[in-house]
Amino acid sequence: MPLSAEQLAEIEAQRATPRPTLRATSEGMEAHLYTAHEVLDHGFIRVIDYMGDDSAIVQAARVSYGAGTKHVQNDDGLIRYLMRHWHSTPFEMCEIKLHVKLPVFVARQWIRHRTANVNEYSARYSILDREFYIPAPDALAAQSTVNNQGRGAVLEGEEAARVLEMLKSDSTRAYDHYEAMLSQEGQQGLARELARMNLPANIYTQWYWKVDLHNLFHFLRLRGDAHAQYEIRVYADAICNVVRDWVPLAFKAFEDYRVGGVNLSAAALDCMRRMLAGETVTQETSGLSKREWREFEAILK
Amino acid sequence: MPLSAEQLAEIEAQRATPRPTLRATSEGMEAHLYTAHEVLDHGFIRVIDYMGDDSAIVQAARVSYGAGTKHVQNDDGLIRYLMRHWHSTPFEMCEIKLHVKLPVFVARQWIRHRTANVNEYSARYSILDREFYIPAPDALAAQSTVNNQGRGAVLEGEEAARVLEMLKSDSTRAYDHYEAMLSQEGQQGLARELARMNLPANIYTQWYWKVDLHNLFHFLRLRGDAHAQYEIRVYADAICNVVRDWVPLAFKAFEDYRVGGVNLSAAALDCMRRMLAGETVTQETSGLSKREWREFEAILK
Amino acid sequence: MPLSAEQLAEIEAQRATPRPTLRATSEGMEAHLYTAHEVLDHGFIRVIDYMGDDSAIVQAARVSYGAGTKHVQNDDGLIRYLMRHWHSTPFEMCEIKLHVKLPVFVARQWIRHRTANVNEYSARYSILDREFYIPAPDALAAQSTVNNQGRGAVLEGEEAARVLEMLKSDSTRAYDHYEAMLSQEGQQGLARELARMNLPANIYTQWYWKVDLHNLFHFLRLRGDAHAQYEIRVYADAICNVVRDWVPLAFKAFEDYRVGGVNLSAAALDCMRRMLAGETVTQETSGLSKREWREFEAILK
Amino acid sequence: MPLSAEQLAEIEAQRATPRPTLRATSEGMEAHLYTAHEVLDHGFIRVIDYMGDDSAIVQAARVSYGAGTKHVQNDDGLIRYLMRHWHSTPFEMCEIKLHVKLPVFVARQWIRHRTANVNEYSARYSILDREFYIPAPDALAAQSTVNNQGRGAVLEGEEAARVLEMLKSDSTRAYDHYEAMLSQEGQQGLARELARMNLPANIYTQWYWKVDLHNLFHFLRLRGDAHAQYEIRVYADAICNVVRDWVPLAFKAFEDYRVGGVNLSAAALDCMRRMLAGETVTQETSGLSKREWREFEAILK
Repeated sequence: MPLSAEQLAEIEAQRATPRPTLRATSEGMEAHLYTAHEVLDHGFIRVIDYMGDDSAIVQAARVSYGAGTKHVQNDDGLIRYLMRHWHSTPFEMCEIKLHVKLPVFVARQWIRHRTANVNEYSARYSILDREFYIPAPDALAAQSTVNNQGRGAVLEGEEAARVLEMLKSDSTRAYDHYEAMLSQEGQQGLARELARMNLPANIYTQWYWKVDLHNLFHFLRLRGDAHAQYEIRVYADAICNVVRDWVPLAFKAFEDYRVGGVNLSAAALDCMRRMLAGETVTQETSGLSKREWREFEAILK
Repeated sequence: MPLSAEQLAEIEAQRATPRPTLRATSEGMEAHLYTAHEVLDHGFIRVIDYMGDDSAIVQAARVSYGAGTKHVQNDDGLIRYLMRHWHSTPFEMCEIKLHVKLPVFVARQWIRHRTANVNEYSARYSILDREFYIPAPDALAAQSTVNNQGRGAVLEGEEAARVLEMLKSDSTRAYDHYEAMLSQEGQQGLARELARMNLPANIYTQWYWKVDLHNLFHFLRLRGDAHAQYEIRVYADAICNVVRDWVPLAFKAFEDYRVGGVNLSAAALDCMRRMLAGETVTQETSGLSKREWREFEAILK
Repeated sequence: MPLSAEQLAEIEAQRATPRPTLRATSEGMEAHLYTAHEVLDHGFIRVIDYMGDDSAIVQAARVSYGAGTKHVQNDDGLIRYLMRHWHSTPFEMCEIKLHVKLPVFVARQWIRHRTANVNEYSARYSILDREFYIPAPDALAAQSTVNNQGRGAVLEGEEAARVLEMLKSDSTRAYDHYEAMLSQEGQQGLARELARMNLPANIYTQWYWKVDLHNLFHFLRLRGDAHAQYEIRVYADAICNVVRDWVPLAFKAFEDYRVGGVNLSAAALDCMRRMLAGETVTQETSGLSKREWREFEAILK
Repeated sequence: MPLSAEQLAEIEAQRATPRPTLRATSEGMEAHLYTAHEVLDHGFIRVIDYMGDDSAIVQAARVSYGAGTKHVQNDDGLIRYLMRHWHSTPFEMCEIKLHVKLPVFVARQWIRHRTANVNEYSARYSILDREFYIPAPDALAAQSTVNNQGRGAVLEGEEAARVLEMLKSDSTRAYDHYEAMLSQEGQQGLARELARMNLPANIYTQWYWKVDLHNLFHFLRLRGDAHAQYEIRVYADAICNVVRDWVPLAFKAFEDYRVGGVNLSAAALDCMRRMLAGETVTQETSGLSKREWREFEAILK
């Protein structure tokens, strides 16, 4: 269970006392504040704070573009225009702060997004909890045979059982030894900063993560993609559910132009034009490599 | 006058309607929201939004350091500890968004601080207002004779009058010609993106500027310093007055450790130790260059 | 003339003395080193230094992907794969350092790209040269009547003559007064940091600009685009000519996927699929706004 | 042993073929290129590429400051001036690219320095080697009793033996199971991206890391500090040995102003002045907290 009764009580207390503010507020987001949305077996995301709403994007763009924007009929049209033409700075004017609990191997991918602020729970200073990610049966996938960094079919039967047994028993043993090394009963006790090295990458860590909306969309596009690893994609999905309620217009534009949209290379664009003109184009006549042709065909369907 | 009656009415409207929020709020900052604090002859800073308060710094640090921080007696002590030991990430958890009106030559210095978000009023898209910075008499300083990038005494008499006359008449003429080139009466009218090139660097521009507290402190230390150009220092001062009310504990630590503090080199530290041991140290016996010795002596007083 | 005889001699001296190195070298780039490529009437770009070549991109990606990349047949295929799938970090492993001379209004657009290192000639410390950008006749464009931030037809006849006369005479007068204010003959002389405010935005400045290849491609895509202002686009074009010789494989992939490629929104993709299936789609049945439909039609041709 | 015979042969080949270049070269750095400097039991750092030298810092600053710098007598004086007054941009004009092999728990600290470029060996794509950090006997330290995130005395006797035994056996078992889960003999084989989660934080990873000199100095100051964890400090030390040969003037200024220098708060500065004036200052009369006084006393000695 991700949160203790004490932690839930603290969250309740925070949620019980609204205060007046003159700042832009998002009603959709207020409903999410502090609440932990569960992810995986022990993880969560919860919104700690936010800055701005859809109007704040427009307002910033209007400083940027001055009186001229009166010609754009409404906020939605302007937001869609900004998204379509990669005018990213107005989206940077919104900011979100999340508290995230996640396995270390997910955290290692996540942190590669550098334009964000992070405070992680320190295992030099404190002792980590005994919580490990153990995949649910339907997430226990075989190595893909076509994609070097992908997954294939779900493992079944004895193999699945063996894998789960190894993951569980190794986690348990590693944590038992972590505690044994730290213990100061009848011995000095190893330094925390050293003992932590025995812990496997499926242990949970947590951090505060703060990012602007433009960089968050970039994160969500890459980590919510079908090729991203399942264990980080579920975090992206959970964040999407929050962002949709926070900035509904911007999120819709993001879905249309980034998530559901595609990039065509100059060569692929040429193929498309020829096909629209009635020509039958094959991989051989396309000018595309086999791999690119396969990806192009996937787009056409 | 920096703001029109219409603009003041818009600000009043924003200030008139508090809304409930569950987020961290800073009462000191709420009092500043939207209000324009005048700077120079036509400029201002006004707070558009903020995220976090002193407690938010502590809260983020406590995720980072976990239960261990219970040993630190209070928020103030922890904030001072973080500042003293350059633990910058908890300060990054607070964010401020400002609307700033400022001369272009000030904007050009300001923008060198890269870790911030900016939306500037676009002179490709819109027409700039006829507003120029003309220094007040006591800001009309001569070139320093000892510092290549500093100021000396204030200009007086005929020279001061001549300078002011040149600045005023050139601004007026440049703007007259800007309008004449843009005009579409009886002619096509030059493109805005070209016409703007005729405008001098004392014309005012404006932008939305969003930055986290750690990077804001860095900006304030450099641009509020006695060696910074007066025309940007007054903006730093105006922002300091706002930040003091927003995060009073963090601001006090900033003043003590950054603004009022000093850096000593290894060689200067050695001098100080020798002096405390009773030795009379001179520039010749100090191991410091003349310039470093002069700077060291200034610290001792 | 952008470079003095003395400056040309210095460049010649630098180009005359090759030294041995064990680092990756790019022969195409060595031919460009230090040479000033002229841009506009007084500007230039010249390569001061570079790090890496096409192989360095592959080498970095292979650490990232390990032995697995043996399946990718060659460097070209891998580079195209990385570009296509937005794997940006290997491109960040190449770096370029440029010396650029450019009008201030171009510099103000340029600096908005924050992920780069900049050292600009300081007008607080030094005196700027009397060099101003005056557009060539074919660059003297009217305001666009369809695009608020674009250009229309070229100005002609008397209007063109009037505009050129204003730009030239205002530049001359502004610089004359700049010198007069700075002068220390018979007067104190205004501080440089103040006198510079009288100079218009078409005066030339210069800087050292260092950026990695990924961020450079981003700059080149935005600033080399047909919608970018002509005066910055010519700098992007000049840089493209250098990058093509430096990392020919990466540049080709950039041209195919970024410059010549297009983004389709989910709605536009749906239109394309319907059209390929034989349906006649109009703006009314497309689900696209009029503006989006116009942009979509432009892609199809 | 960190490098195989094959890898050593590849390094030899790279070191055997100097090529002519017109770029700035650093002889001290050429001697280091590609060579692996061993760190810990299986780690290393090796220089893959570099850009610039001491002169490149001066050259960039002189664009920044123009002809005025002729007053500064020599490169050394200018570099010291830039370092003393936090003019960081000229140092950003040098760049270094390293190949680093390091334990995962060290990598997790390292990556918090965001202003750098990284390509890490991917355990989604490839299989990690069986190499784990096992502390040498003199690095096996107890938890500090005075500092929550520090180390105390070295463990001895049975306790040390027990800890080493746990670390070794758990590493072995975790890797055995990693291989067993991956194996495709008689079973499907778990996806690599999942199997890696069983590996502890003392396993070695490797990456390409590219950073500019200013940000490298920041890294070296924090991670080479006496309070940094030993296992990252030894990497900082190894990098220092390389940087000293690359940019000797800049490194000396860094040592004097950053490594050997100190920061005094306003309150501590006041104490120092009073002591120099002959007053006896105690913690009670200092205005410093006990902890700050302790740190101040440590500086005085």
